[in-house]
Amino acid sequence: MKITVVGAGGMGSRFAIMLHQAGHNVELVDGWQDNVDAIRANGLKADFNGEPVTVKLPIYSPAEVDATGEKPDLIIVFTKSNQLRSMMEAVKPIISPVTYVLCLLNGIGHEDILEDYVAKDHLILGITMWTAGMTGPGQVTLVGNGDVELQNFEPAGEAFTKQVVQVFTEAGLNPKYSENVKYSIWRKACVNGTLNCLCSLLECNIGELGSTTVASDLLHTIIAEFATVAAKEGINLDEQEVYDHVAGTFTANIAGHYPSMYQDLVKNHRATEIDFINGAVWRKGQKYGIPTPYCALLTQLIHAKEQLVGAVERTKAHV
Amino acid sequence: MKITVVGAGGMGSRFAIMLHQAGHNVELVDGWQDNVDAIRANGLKADFNGEPVTVKLPIYSPAEVDATGEKPDLIIVFTKSNQLRSMMEAVKPIISPVTYVLCLLNGIGHEDILEDYVAKDHLILGITMWTAGMTGPGQVTLVGNGDVELQNFEPAGEAFTKQVVQVFTEAGLNPKYSENVKYSIWRKACVNGTLNCLCSLLECNIGELGSTTVASDLLHTIIAEFATVAAKEGINLDEQEVYDHVAGTFTANIAGHYPSMYQDLVKNHRATEIDFINGAVWRKGQKYGIPTPYCALLTQLIHAKEQLVGAVERTKAHV
Repeated sequence: MKITVVGAGGMGSRFAIMLHQAGHNVELVDGWQDNVDAIRANGLKADFNGEPVTVKLPIYSPAEVDATGEKPDLIIVFTKSNQLRSMMEAVKPIISPVTYVLCLLNGIGHEDILEDYVAKDHLILGITMWTAGMTGPGQVTLVGNGDVELQNFEPAGEAFTKQVVQVFTEAGLNPKYSENVKYSIWRKACVNGTLNCLCSLLECNIGELGSTTVASDLLHTIIAEFATVAAKEGINLDEQEVYDHVAGTFTANIAGHYPSMYQDLVKNHRATEIDFINGAVWRKGQKYGIPTPYCALLTQLIHAKEQLVGAVERTKAHV
Repeated sequence: MKITVVGAGGMGSRFAIMLHQAGHNVELVDGWQDNVDAIRANGLKADFNGEPVTVKLPIYSPAEVDATGEKPDLIIVFTKSNQLRSMMEAVKPIISPVTYVLCLLNGIGHEDILEDYVAKDHLILGITMWTAGMTGPGQVTLVGNGDVELQNFEPAGEAFTKQVVQVFTEAGLNPKYSENVKYSIWRKACVNGTLNCLCSLLECNIGELGSTTVASDLLHTIIAEFATVAAKEGINLDEQEVYDHVAGTFTANIAGHYPSMYQDLVKNHRATEIDFINGAVWRKGQKYGIPTPYCALLTQLIHAKEQLVGAVERTKAHV
């Protein structure tokens, strides 16, 4: 299968390496020129569970993407959420009528952007529990295990999606064909919609958040807002199960972990993906006439903090 | 007039010194033993607009207050809001049936506590724009000008309150007898209910808050919650005027100022008075069946931050 991975950060690199090692024809597109240059010069270098791996893969900057070559069967997007639209613009020339696009990004509402570039029946959505870290241009660290859950957005895409499951299985990516991936996406968004913004605002790790007397109330209220909006989209979240799932992280082995939004905002002073998490619930809530004041205020506070730490406020411009 | 000032911090010391200089019989009660010891040993020392002033005043710790002496005509409370109840317990022995209690504390709902210690018709409420800073035990800095607005809580207290206005006038405190002090209290609480919690959560000064794109929406939403609850108490805030008043601080000469809650929480890691500002609106909102989600979430986030910075969580215990 010819596969183009759009966004060669940690996760994109993981999928590219594992699919390449399984014998597929993998290409990369990435917007960070230093990364493009490093991978082109030295290959993509990974610390893969302690083993050094170097993989030679074609890589293109957005400006270099053109329509002359063979079109991919599958595009996997692993951009930052707020760069999704501009990257889809860039790869438009290689999207043929038979190309499928798989989105495994955290958060809600990416399909609203993707639908502008690919027919709904060629759209595949999913979530992944794999992790990956970038240590420098062309260099990633890939540790531990994970899995993928995915499903075609419309019934017509089922056959191809099951082919993707087969390809992912051969690559060791532990995929599962989901009968209700939207539920899983919303359930995972509840984790991000509670831990990410709260730890970023309070500048604490997951366990510290859990140690406060207000954590339980905050989780319940935020999850209730997610659930009320999700119900309008036909997804009936089991609020208690989701609450238990999120609250379980307070005492799990990831309790000492600082969520990715904390890393982006507090540590690296970068714009966050809040508009695809709480911000998406707020936006959808407005559309459906559902008040989501906690999601609204949390989104506003994160945006204020982005501006105060000097993060480029590119989030809204790209939605 | 015999006056007992309860709480000899910056503001209590200012009022005590100015009333003493006007010839009144002023005593102090304070809960910080180092402060009591310093004032007893060396007098209360002030940098009063650049002039050194030392005033000898009787001062008592809460444990030393007893019923044997002459009762004060007026008690002025200048405690921290969350220490008000315990200090009122301590000074109970000196409250006679003819003693009036004046409260000039920032925030909402102090009368709910004071009513347990003094008859409503002996209660005087007000606000003050005077400022004061404490630089150490027994040492304060008093700079600039200010004023006081006050009114008896019930009609029966009018005559005595006007006497207090006269006393304050003689002391240079620039008092004004108010026809609607509750309006002024709520209006001032809107300033604290926006700037204090937001600057404390975002760790910024007033001007920086004002520079964010979300400041205007945040102010409007929070002030609307205050106004809806205030209306249930017969106070009809002019929301646009209050908004203009608060937003005016973003470009005023206090734009570089960090609100007192920031000082308490971020700088000194102390418990805040959030339960008497946004927390009071949330509490009253629950009583009246009015949703105040922004006040609720802001109160919860401030409490979480208090706990994370190790501030003693004494707020709730004393309400």
